Amino acid sequence: MKRSLGARTVLLPAPVLVVGTYDKEGRPNVMTVAWGGICCSNPPCVDIALRKATYTYQSILDRKAFTVHVTPEKYLTEADYFGIVSGRDVDKFAATGLTAAGSETVDAPYIKEFPFVLECSLREVVELGLHTQFIGEIMDVKVDEDVLDDRGLPDVGRIKPTVMVPEIRKYYGFGERLGNVFVVGRKLRDK
Amino acid sequence: MKRSLGARTVLLPAPVLVVGTYDKEGRPNVMTVAWGGICCSNPPCVDIALRKATYTYQSILDRKAFTVHVTPEKYLTEADYFGIVSGRDVDKFAATGLTAAGSETVDAPYIKEFPFVLECSLREVVELGLHTQFIGEIMDVKVDEDVLDDRGLPDVGRIKPTVMVPEIRKYYGFGERLGNVFVVGRKLRDK
Repeated sequence: MKRSLGARTVLLPAPVLVVGTYDKEGRPNVMTVAWGGICCSNPPCVDIALRKATYTYQSILDRKAFTVHVTPEKYLTEADYFGIVSGRDVDKFAATGLTAAGSETVDAPYIKEFPFVLECSLREVVELGLHTQFIGEIMDVKVDEDVLDDRGLPDVGRIKPTVMVPEIRKYYGFGERLGNVFVVGRKLRDK
Repeated sequence: MKRSLGARTVLLPAPVLVVGTYDKEGRPNVMTVAWGGICCSNPPCVDIALRKATYTYQSILDRKAFTVHVTPEKYLTEADYFGIVSGRDVDKFAATGLTAAGSETVDAPYIKEFPFVLECSLREVVELGLHTQFIGEIMDVKVDEDVLDDRGLPDVGRIKPTVMVPEIRKYYGFGERLGNVFVVGRKLRDK
């Protein structure tokens, strides 16, 4: 039997994405969002959704660029903090001791200590209600050498990315490897 | 040192979402997508992105509705299969022995055996390139009674949702619980 939970925003998994921007004065800021993900393969695009009240909202409109960091377990405390306080009131880099670096491809900063970052150029703005969706074209992906596998792709075991469950408001790690995409289902196709 | 991987669609985690639609003749179909997630809290909205070549693409435009299922580990083989074959060629319900049920709130089917489903009414269509993003307003969330916790919210331990890593093309389970959202970061705010 299914129970109706009403119209609400629970979905599993949600990511834990840290968005980096420069404000009008060129100060680097970061905030954490759970509403986001890849939305187009070619050109490669990623979407994030923000409330208008956030400090990052205006920075993205001003600079037409942002970065998106994957949150590793190691920096979960910092990422959660980035979602609690506003860049209007606090220098989040100073407060956490993390280092802002300038992206090479877009007008946005990234966190040097975070191992995985997408550099994005603003492409679409979709007004939805409380949240506005920003779609960015991914201009480059930068990853720390020491979390790459021997094919040069991000290694989940070394990054240890985190997962979020909205409404339930809990963070989780990645679990066991379950199989390969477009492989585990073949037995149903070929039966 | 960071290495530049170029403009590509790798992000961790991506979800494993099964999208349900009726075609023009009213036949239920399902396909699996990794590009999707919540994008607005109020009204509650979810986005999914599809290639125009998919059978589901036209069905969403025709019916202005779709469902979004979370993929539990138990049905990962079926979900992967739903991404390998097209509803143009195969009745995926017959092939897997799963049961199509009609949503109460929107003109789309859902898979009775999948424990967690969002019922969505089409709201925005954003053309991006190879993929088109469909944004749906969540009209209801339906969850199996036996995967709800004592507060009536989905229980991760009972659903066992899956996670996908694009480009690396691997599925993972959920891992260890790491903490509470807007709680683990407080020690940085309050220090």
